[in-house]
Amino acid sequence: MNNWVTKLQKYRARIKDHEGDIHAWASLDWDFVERQVADLDSWPKSKRGPLYGVPFGVKDIFDTVDLPTTYGSEIYKGTQPVSDAASVARLRAAGAIIMGKTVSTEFAYLKPTKTKNPIDFSRTPGGSSSGSAAAVADKMIPFALGSQTAASIIQPASYCGVIGFKPTWGLISTAGVKTLASSLDTVGVIAETVGCVSDVVTILTGAPDFLNNLEIFNPPNLAILFSPEWTSASTKSLIHFSKAVSLARASGANINEGKVPVLFENLASEQAQLMAYEATRDLAYERHVYFDQLSQPLRDLFFQGEGISAKEYLSINQNRAWALCSIEELFGDSDALLAPSTVDIAPKTEEGTGDPVMSRTWTLLGLPSITLPCGYSKNGLPFGLQIACRPRDDSKLLAIAQWFERIL
Amino acid sequence: MNNWVTKLQKYRARIKDHEGDIHAWASLDWDFVERQVADLDSWPKSKRGPLYGVPFGVKDIFDTVDLPTTYGSEIYKGTQPVSDAASVARLRAAGAIIMGKTVSTEFAYLKPTKTKNPIDFSRTPGGSSSGSAAAVADKMIPFALGSQTAASIIQPASYCGVIGFKPTWGLISTAGVKTLASSLDTVGVIAETVGCVSDVVTILTGAPDFLNNLEIFNPPNLAILFSPEWTSASTKSLIHFSKAVSLARASGANINEGKVPVLFENLASEQAQLMAYEATRDLAYERHVYFDQLSQPLRDLFFQGEGISAKEYLSINQNRAWALCSIEELFGDSDALLAPSTVDIAPKTEEGTGDPVMSRTWTLLGLPSITLPCGYSKNGLPFGLQIACRPRDDSKLLAIAQWFERIL
Repeated sequence: MNNWVTKLQKYRARIKDHEGDIHAWASLDWDFVERQVADLDSWPKSKRGPLYGVPFGVKDIFDTVDLPTTYGSEIYKGTQPVSDAASVARLRAAGAIIMGKTVSTEFAYLKPTKTKNPIDFSRTPGGSSSGSAAAVADKMIPFALGSQTAASIIQPASYCGVIGFKPTWGLISTAGVKTLASSLDTVGVIAETVGCVSDVVTILTGAPDFLNNLEIFNPPNLAILFSPEWTSASTKSLIHFSKAVSLARASGANINEGKVPVLFENLASEQAQLMAYEATRDLAYERHVYFDQLSQPLRDLFFQGEGISAKEYLSINQNRAWALCSIEELFGDSDALLAPSTVDIAPKTEEGTGDPVMSRTWTLLGLPSITLPCGYSKNGLPFGLQIACRPRDDSKLLAIAQWFERIL
Repeated sequence: MNNWVTKLQKYRARIKDHEGDIHAWASLDWDFVERQVADLDSWPKSKRGPLYGVPFGVKDIFDTVDLPTTYGSEIYKGTQPVSDAASVARLRAAGAIIMGKTVSTEFAYLKPTKTKNPIDFSRTPGGSSSGSAAAVADKMIPFALGSQTAASIIQPASYCGVIGFKPTWGLISTAGVKTLASSLDTVGVIAETVGCVSDVVTILTGAPDFLNNLEIFNPPNLAILFSPEWTSASTKSLIHFSKAVSLARASGANINEGKVPVLFENLASEQAQLMAYEATRDLAYERHVYFDQLSQPLRDLFFQGEGISAKEYLSINQNRAWALCSIEELFGDSDALLAPSTVDIAPKTEEGTGDPVMSRTWTLLGLPSITLPCGYSKNGLPFGLQIACRPRDDSKLLAIAQWFERIL
């Protein structure tokens, strides 16, 4: 039997063993997996790239032509899209195998899901890419597609102790992905290793020149910029962050500390406003036609959004544009910024999917960002280190992340 | 009978009389129109806003839950979406009536359609919002939704002699609209009057404060900035443009002339590159699965896109970001820029849907722009005046357009 088929069967066995506890999957169809395997078997060796035969999970807000897509909502139960999302199509064309659809919160917003954190079943895996993070963390698949509008990749990946990569806004196609807030929604990858993220992004950007020469920054120039949202971070979260920083310094990194410039100080709250306005606009169909079937968190978001005028929305966009034109003020001499990925470890299930505040500003600015596990609580729950680069410096970010992967 | 129902029946009669010649519609369903009328009849007077009972056309790349949606391609013949596009949902919630789906070129790209220019059946209505422009021009409907990635609103509206408005990129929701090139795709409006455009945009942005106080700029400060693409404009097109400019000057406008700054000189060709890269990425499913069923123009676009690396794509995005940070260099003291809407009148049917070059730069920058008819050839074919404002100055742009509407 081919090596890739053996590996695939191992992942499949893992799902069969653990899915009853984890509930990471919105839909699984083993016949469909078999059909993909049969198709791939005849591919010539020359066509087989790094993702050939590699199984992956697809967040259930991505359209798939062979599996139902619910967008995390009962409204769309059993819906069968007529095409694959563009990102899914590219991965399939590279020989990757759709293992199934991973659980998403309702329309990628805050309503908790059935998915458990594989490290502690009494805790949330985070959201909205709940199933993608849990399935990768539980080694049911080596990688999954996710999406982020506030913190929906970084936060669940951090809570589950895996790599979560949110590229520069717009780099990877969002075509065929349910819109939550169009100027924030970003497709990204949750994976076991930075190298795997890199292989996936190479396929998704369609350009072999993009990431195949990961530069090694040794030592990288880094900065830590304190901003109001840091006051939400728990002491333990800051301690584990500091340990990672010390380790980086000891490994030769140059790390400056300071305060975030005034222009960037309030962007976390502006992100929340902008997200409410856009979600109210972009989910207009569901809001007008299915209001009764929406969760309270989503209704509350719409109430908030209805209170934001188009003028305020344009004014937030103006502030974002100014901030982006002053991005050098933020980065200065640094290659990347560092921060805790989340305010704390994964909360208990009944407390919701967790606070996204540590990622709001960077998402608003469309910066590429990544999370890596950087420490564990006594009970083995992970803390994450979040790294961000300038817009379009995705390649540099992955190189820096690989450097951290080695030292952490 | 209610006044709005009488008006609706007049539009409907017009469609019945003329559709056999114009072919503006991808789908029509009179029973569905009747159902909408019946629903609206019971609305209390207090809920009836300016769009109550007003029929409109929806470009066939917008999802509609009650009418099939083909995205202009045989691949999706008979496809029935599970939701309305967000923009459609908002208009319906305001009481506007979907008259039908208007013809789009294949995936809003260049393949000519069956639609005729109502002014001269031997000529194209332009593309890609072919049916939207033709139906409004033929007075089958007062307004239609369209979308623009290069010139797909401005050009057909200009060729058909109606108002075409492309707002600031991102202002109106693209949720539920088939993606052609995500960082360019913009939803807009084709209408009989600037006032009608304003009513529609007020609903689509969800904020009554946005456009209800149209300022009157008398005289407005305007600029004409010559760039390489102007060399494509025909003498007649430039003559009619100059006449409109003279009329504006005579009416008190202050109009400066100059050359476009160097930073903006090559953006038209960069727009074409970026569009090819993104279309190749965003239509990945159709490219991989249905290549044989795609038109030659679209295949050619994909061949072009495959040749553009992610690094080149990011570099174009960098240039766009720099240009946007220097937008004051472009506008200086001016409120708006003026240019011909198209290089000439609508070409003969067999020559394709026409050249989009006069709108490429402004679309790349996401500027709000509008076209108004500003003159006619001996045979009655219209020339258009194109006006653009700074990003987010949509309200000001509509005010300036109303000023031009009065003087032209």
